[in-house]
Amino acid sequence: MKDIYIADLASFEEGKLFDGFFLVLAKQQRTTKTNKPYLNLMLGDKTGQLEARVWEPGDPRIAKAFDRGDVVKVRGCASRFDDRLQLKVDQLRLALPLEVDKSDLLPATSFDVAVLWSQLLATVESLANPDLKRLLDAILSEEAIASAFREAPAARGLHHAWLGGLLEHVVSLLGMAERVAAHYPLLDRDLLITGVILHDIGKIRELSWAIGFEYTIEGILLGHIQMGVDLVEKTIATLPGFPDHLRTLVLHLILSHHGKLEFGSPKLPMIPEALALNFIDDLDAKMMAVTTEFEKSIREGKGPDELTGKVWSLDNRQLLNTKRWLGEDRE
Amino acid sequence: MKDIYIADLASFEEGKLFDGFFLVLAKQQRTTKTNKPYLNLMLGDKTGQLEARVWEPGDPRIAKAFDRGDVVKVRGCASRFDDRLQLKVDQLRLALPLEVDKSDLLPATSFDVAVLWSQLLATVESLANPDLKRLLDAILSEEAIASAFREAPAARGLHHAWLGGLLEHVVSLLGMAERVAAHYPLLDRDLLITGVILHDIGKIRELSWAIGFEYTIEGILLGHIQMGVDLVEKTIATLPGFPDHLRTLVLHLILSHHGKLEFGSPKLPMIPEALALNFIDDLDAKMMAVTTEFEKSIREGKGPDELTGKVWSLDNRQLLNTKRWLGEDRE
Amino acid sequence: MKDIYIADLASFEEGKLFDGFFLVLAKQQRTTKTNKPYLNLMLGDKTGQLEARVWEPGDPRIAKAFDRGDVVKVRGCASRFDDRLQLKVDQLRLALPLEVDKSDLLPATSFDVAVLWSQLLATVESLANPDLKRLLDAILSEEAIASAFREAPAARGLHHAWLGGLLEHVVSLLGMAERVAAHYPLLDRDLLITGVILHDIGKIRELSWAIGFEYTIEGILLGHIQMGVDLVEKTIATLPGFPDHLRTLVLHLILSHHGKLEFGSPKLPMIPEALALNFIDDLDAKMMAVTTEFEKSIREGKGPDELTGKVWSLDNRQLLNTKRWLGEDRE
Amino acid sequence: MKDIYIADLASFEEGKLFDGFFLVLAKQQRTTKTNKPYLNLMLGDKTGQLEARVWEPGDPRIAKAFDRGDVVKVRGCASRFDDRLQLKVDQLRLALPLEVDKSDLLPATSFDVAVLWSQLLATVESLANPDLKRLLDAILSEEAIASAFREAPAARGLHHAWLGGLLEHVVSLLGMAERVAAHYPLLDRDLLITGVILHDIGKIRELSWAIGFEYTIEGILLGHIQMGVDLVEKTIATLPGFPDHLRTLVLHLILSHHGKLEFGSPKLPMIPEALALNFIDDLDAKMMAVTTEFEKSIREGKGPDELTGKVWSLDNRQLLNTKRWLGEDRE
Amino acid sequence: MKDIYIADLASFEEGKLFDGFFLVLAKQQRTTKTNKPYLNLMLGDKTGQLEARVWEPGDPRIAKAFDRGDVVKVRGCASRFDDRLQLKVDQLRLALPLEVDKSDLLPATSFDVAVLWSQLLATVESLANPDLKRLLDAILSEEAIASAFREAPAARGLHHAWLGGLLEHVVSLLGMAERVAAHYPLLDRDLLITGVILHDIGKIRELSWAIGFEYTIEGILLGHIQMGVDLVEKTIATLPGFPDHLRTLVLHLILSHHGKLEFGSPKLPMIPEALALNFIDDLDAKMMAVTTEFEKSIREGKGPDELTGKVWSLDNRQLLNTKRWLGEDRE
Amino acid sequence: MKDIYIADLASFEEGKLFDGFFLVLAKQQRTTKTNKPYLNLMLGDKTGQLEARVWEPGDPRIAKAFDRGDVVKVRGCASRFDDRLQLKVDQLRLALPLEVDKSDLLPATSFDVAVLWSQLLATVESLANPDLKRLLDAILSEEAIASAFREAPAARGLHHAWLGGLLEHVVSLLGMAERVAAHYPLLDRDLLITGVILHDIGKIRELSWAIGFEYTIEGILLGHIQMGVDLVEKTIATLPGFPDHLRTLVLHLILSHHGKLEFGSPKLPMIPEALALNFIDDLDAKMMAVTTEFEKSIREGKGPDELTGKVWSLDNRQLLNTKRWLGEDRE
Repeated sequence: MKDIYIADLASFEEGKLFDGFFLVLAKQQRTTKTNKPYLNLMLGDKTGQLEARVWEPGDPRIAKAFDRGDVVKVRGCASRFDDRLQLKVDQLRLALPLEVDKSDLLPATSFDVAVLWSQLLATVESLANPDLKRLLDAILSEEAIASAFREAPAARGLHHAWLGGLLEHVVSLLGMAERVAAHYPLLDRDLLITGVILHDIGKIRELSWAIGFEYTIEGILLGHIQMGVDLVEKTIATLPGFPDHLRTLVLHLILSHHGKLEFGSPKLPMIPEALALNFIDDLDAKMMAVTTEFEKSIREGKGPDELTGKVWSLDNRQLLNTKRWLGEDRE
Repeated sequence: MKDIYIADLASFEEGKLFDGFFLVLAKQQRTTKTNKPYLNLMLGDKTGQLEARVWEPGDPRIAKAFDRGDVVKVRGCASRFDDRLQLKVDQLRLALPLEVDKSDLLPATSFDVAVLWSQLLATVESLANPDLKRLLDAILSEEAIASAFREAPAARGLHHAWLGGLLEHVVSLLGMAERVAAHYPLLDRDLLITGVILHDIGKIRELSWAIGFEYTIEGILLGHIQMGVDLVEKTIATLPGFPDHLRTLVLHLILSHHGKLEFGSPKLPMIPEALALNFIDDLDAKMMAVTTEFEKSIREGKGPDELTGKVWSLDNRQLLNTKRWLGEDRE
Repeated sequence: MKDIYIADLASFEEGKLFDGFFLVLAKQQRTTKTNKPYLNLMLGDKTGQLEARVWEPGDPRIAKAFDRGDVVKVRGCASRFDDRLQLKVDQLRLALPLEVDKSDLLPATSFDVAVLWSQLLATVESLANPDLKRLLDAILSEEAIASAFREAPAARGLHHAWLGGLLEHVVSLLGMAERVAAHYPLLDRDLLITGVILHDIGKIRELSWAIGFEYTIEGILLGHIQMGVDLVEKTIATLPGFPDHLRTLVLHLILSHHGKLEFGSPKLPMIPEALALNFIDDLDAKMMAVTTEFEKSIREGKGPDELTGKVWSLDNRQLLNTKRWLGEDRE
Repeated sequence: MKDIYIADLASFEEGKLFDGFFLVLAKQQRTTKTNKPYLNLMLGDKTGQLEARVWEPGDPRIAKAFDRGDVVKVRGCASRFDDRLQLKVDQLRLALPLEVDKSDLLPATSFDVAVLWSQLLATVESLANPDLKRLLDAILSEEAIASAFREAPAARGLHHAWLGGLLEHVVSLLGMAERVAAHYPLLDRDLLITGVILHDIGKIRELSWAIGFEYTIEGILLGHIQMGVDLVEKTIATLPGFPDHLRTLVLHLILSHHGKLEFGSPKLPMIPEALALNFIDDLDAKMMAVTTEFEKSIREGKGPDELTGKVWSLDNRQLLNTKRWLGEDRE
Repeated sequence: MKDIYIADLASFEEGKLFDGFFLVLAKQQRTTKTNKPYLNLMLGDKTGQLEARVWEPGDPRIAKAFDRGDVVKVRGCASRFDDRLQLKVDQLRLALPLEVDKSDLLPATSFDVAVLWSQLLATVESLANPDLKRLLDAILSEEAIASAFREAPAARGLHHAWLGGLLEHVVSLLGMAERVAAHYPLLDRDLLITGVILHDIGKIRELSWAIGFEYTIEGILLGHIQMGVDLVEKTIATLPGFPDHLRTLVLHLILSHHGKLEFGSPKLPMIPEALALNFIDDLDAKMMAVTTEFEKSIREGKGPDELTGKVWSLDNRQLLNTKRWLGEDRE
Repeated sequence: MKDIYIADLASFEEGKLFDGFFLVLAKQQRTTKTNKPYLNLMLGDKTGQLEARVWEPGDPRIAKAFDRGDVVKVRGCASRFDDRLQLKVDQLRLALPLEVDKSDLLPATSFDVAVLWSQLLATVESLANPDLKRLLDAILSEEAIASAFREAPAARGLHHAWLGGLLEHVVSLLGMAERVAAHYPLLDRDLLITGVILHDIGKIRELSWAIGFEYTIEGILLGHIQMGVDLVEKTIATLPGFPDHLRTLVLHLILSHHGKLEFGSPKLPMIPEALALNFIDDLDAKMMAVTTEFEKSIREGKGPDELTGKVWSLDNRQLLNTKRWLGEDRE
């Protein structure tokens, strides 16, 4: 059973040996300056990923036959080189089938997926508009879609992405959508809810998450906006009497949800629900990014007076953790 | 008493005479192509403003001594020229002191200002942070500020601006702030509330609203961000023991609320509350713009299948009124 | 029969009466400064459009019952006001069913549509890739699509748009595609040809051309890129065994043909054929714009030493007609 | 006494031992690839900063108890690794209180600060406008401000920043301001002078320069523009009868001196003096950058035919040293 | 002799007749709404230009045979229409050869051209570098160039352009160049002076100023930067032994003086003198624009509390006249 | 004779010794972490360039007297460090005069230069316009120009640049120019051909290619556009009676061929031929970049399902090799 996680290693004493199970995300043959061959690995588990070095690949305690995608048991120690943490591997073998729980190997949402899913279904159940309900039922009751929806990450980057991330993001947005629709009577609540649930559904085809998180070639050439629109178009085609106007509005919500042409939306939001969807989607992503950065700063031992590193998704801005700075965490 | 409003005139038959009271927003001497002098006026009341022509300024029924800022009683009729509505004035005199209620002459919020104000004060009362409460109390209890806050428009443009507009905008934002703070535990609710109340307070000095809505020269050279920061700085200087960190955060919320340097914020939002404030401020302004555009389209007789005109504050986008468009399919 | 065209009127003597048939593109009630009602019309035929004024709408020689979309016979004369040409209408009646040929009333391609169409079909016939041929056959043999393809304009603006404009543009592009594919062996000729034929096919749904050229509401909310992709997706779904890779590439060609995100393409060209398609599409549009501008300059009587007006589709650049300036047109 | 400077080390023979005094700017524990711990230091003095390595931190000749901010005496030698100069440290101890002159440890202006300061005061003395003189006197006679003004760097980056840099920059600008005001009678000389002296005064609070040059947290959240405006606002509040118009203009000069919103000025220059201030401030910064780059090229042994490296503050442009290229330095 | 100028007409009573001499800048035939033909003229003199209307072109007191480029004597009166000033012309005849001084008909510098020219020559005389002196002598002693240099405007727009404008601008820049070179020892004074004198010399071919100010076709296609470089290249080719390095630097100064690629400079400034030239050129143009705007505001009767109109060359900024606002002009 | 090329080394076994001839592109003295001196070389041949290390510079088998620009014979082996290939040099001596063919040492076009050149001359021969023919003849018959034209690369970057690259690019463009001129009758074929041949001719002076590919200082300060214009201007000056209009158009083609001001063209294309030249030049450069990237991917062993690396000249886009992905290369 897995009891050592990558996130823990940062605080390990250098040189102290430990055993752990990890997923092999990449494997390369390299040579030292003095021409000695070694292996460079990228190992991952649900808490992160870490570079590892096998300096003696010929050692009999190092398995020969392992590759990207395999789960391995490793004995080694942490080391720091030029301020970067690294793993020095002394022994390595393939893990046995039952030694590790798969859910420990890829980062995953900290929420209970079953609970998130039932919140999503309950929201669908609450819709007053029968056509939108019909549409969402048709999509979410297709098992291939439902199970992918429960597993998919919301993005590729390891730091902001995890199994169940898409569902977690959508359920958070549903909460905001209810609040915004309650505040602005202008908004059609059912349409906004539908937009929230379907806006990123193309990601279940744009991304693959079997070993690490990757874009599919089709995903790169077509994008999740087009893939989501296609899935919805084809579902609607199976629903007799689905109103044309409603179809156009649902598709428009998906097409325009990035809010700007230069962010890959081929249409700007032109209905109030599309404007609102773009705002809450963007705000939720940013709140998630801020939370992640603050956790990372604490993990890295930064003090309350220190800013985070530069946050790529916020124009390389640095951020200050208000609550810590105001001292709530100090006593 | 005023019973004819500018907004009503669009539906008046051309040539039908009526009497009405209006505020003179501008007055100019002009000449026709055939060298005949006439007066060109801009008349306003709380529902809008309209160009008016006095073709016979020498007529004894036209008062000589009136100017920008006066309230006048006018007899005339509507006319349309090149699709623009105009007023043809036959008679004009100064209004008597008690003939018109001042509140009928400038556009004003449709909400009850006293109710909005008590909602604002109740929110301040609810703050748990004693310093922020002290600060807001000190500012809002200063009568010159309080009365200006109740009267000020939120912007200059006549279409998106009205007496009490600032307060209406702030109270709407308070509602959104409560909802967002409840959704994201990351956020310090009291700090966000304080940011909402103070972010635009400089507008009470940037704008003047005695006759129409104008920028003051000081407002143009310094801007409401700097003017608001100065007001808060000077108030804090009177509060013994106000924490330095809290002062910096409150000022940062005001400085960064436009969200981008190119929108006139000298600092980008660097704390979670500043990010959230920028989002809800922007969303509220856009929802107001959309509502105004939809009302205008209905007033202009556009059908449910027609888009609005190009909306300047939304990159000249045209908008579709979802509910009206869907309503055709519903019955 | 129609023998007076709008393009001819520029050279007419002011005040000289003539009779002509026109399509009513717009009709509005207006009032003169002196409160006299009049009609403001926009009349069109295949050579252009022109504002017209009916100063005496009550005259019995002016029909009461006509509207936007009707064809009318008009007696009147040309007049110039502030350098703009206008029509002064003395008499107006509805045209009889057989008096006018519909093809005279909207601007149309100067090419023979049947010839263009057979060039298009011959090119499809020449494809070596059986799947692409199957796809194009399926689409072009659907009569609703084929007839719309033969009629649709390539854009809305009256000056660069005419019936058959889409087909004319596509056939010109086919010529360039053959030449480019012959020059660069890197390119898959059949794929490029398919991209050319399908890239703008969504325009047959984005635009309407019954009376003048307009965007449909669905067209505004979804755009011709999405509408074209949907048409192709649904057709492919009916073709058993259509290769997945090929489907992705064809859709990518449509999605990326505007070449930049900010021009409304949700994906940048990522295959050589998409790069080439974007180039020849853009070049063909610009060559057409230049040709149109040069013709307009000559029609307006500009000399060989004068630049054209500012061309909107070329960043408001002015252009010089090389051949005229070099004197080939002078002798 | 300090007689070896960092700038000298570039020309030292590798391996030749020397003794020197330096300020510790940073200190980190690291490990070699072979798991051996070592210390990585950043050492500085007034001529620059240099990375240093202590390969044997356990050696008794290496002091245990030293930290960032301490002054140390070091014995070691220069070495070059991948073209970067480095210090190899064999011995290290804390410096004694009187061994080093503090002014040798941070880069400092090459001018005599007392002379610069008296030039500044003489210029203030020369003002004809009594209110501006009063304001400047009030600010510069406050000892905390005056001493910070004499010490502060003009920016953080070590290469373009040094103690007294702010004052040096301001006095250079005063010279240009006199020249520009003499050339353009449009300009109010006293106002321009005042703008020059106060435009960057917020930097005395935005930056800290005790150990190296850093931004304060307050500086990051508020910025030197706001901090300077606040200092001036509060000083004016103590000056009875200070004219309102003059106050607005002085604040406007500070607010707008970066010249563009995207450079952090919340207002564009709207008075002639603000336009001129922005120009001479920018030109002076660029002339300083060019001078620094040329000196660096010479120090690095580049020939007269070689361009400088890419200059960040000049859009990564490379520069040519005109005078050297023309050969004045060649004979 | 000319004694009524266009700038004076703004303050004329409407309808009061006067006689004046003007240059005909444009002449068009037009028709009123009621089909009556009239002439629309653009008349100019050295103080500005004004639209004029001849409502009775058939009147025998209106000359038949006059055209663009002719000087005419006009009897008429001022009138205002929609706030625009216009001239109503009752009589018009060609001016006799000696009735008007040509210099009264196009706007011209208010400086004495002979004095400016001798200042320019004196500066050339003062150069220490014999090659640069040789080059400037060769260019300025060519009579066609010299006389064009004395006459050319600095730009086309009537409001910022006048005969002798180029020379006035260059002489002002020479003053600034001396001051900047004296302040920054980094700069090669002779090279900077040469750049100032030659940077815009291509304008003597880019513009024509016989009748109003126009671009030549060659000027539009090649631009004054290229035309200036060509003139200098060809002159240098006639100077035996002119140093290659010096030639490159002089050409670089001309090529880069707009400072940015997007302003039409094919190269960015890469030598200190080019950086300085770009700054003083830009500052001088802006100071001229500000001066012109302030004069215009006073001419239009604006008060000291009013901003100027939006200034195109300053990003549509409005400006405040500091000195007037501070009250120096009030007593 | 040279039989080992740099491109071959990627597939060499690490440590296997070989002998080869290379051009020394750079040579630097460096030190290891342990203070041991070594040599860092950049070696090149026609297939690429590679870093090499001489760890024992004192070894008698390592020549002392060699420098940048020399051809050397090297004995050594390939090694990989951090995924970068490197050469470990054991022995090194100067090559003898006849041991290596110079054409093996710099990357060169894969086409026969003599054939390309005769294609170019044949195209010139085919021109109908006698003046353009005269101009091209005059330029291309000057031996210094002709031989530089046959040798010059089209750009500096080693990867997209090779001897004869300019000529190869121009001849490819001539093919496209013929095709485009045949397709669009609007275009003057002779003018377009002339633009193609002369547009980059300044590169023969902007670049040097004796040892590697570099910009000349004059090239950096003036640019190939200006240098090409100058060469053409001076040639035209020698051709009596060359028409002014034609001269302007040819110069305009060179000045505007980058298509945008921000790409360094001081003028936008304003004639049809300039528009077309900009398009085909850009397309040809992109097709070359794509071809190069695809070849590189294959060389690096990427599979048909893998995208290329990010392509700098295509906004860091990744590309998919259509033909490989569709499987043509798979069997």
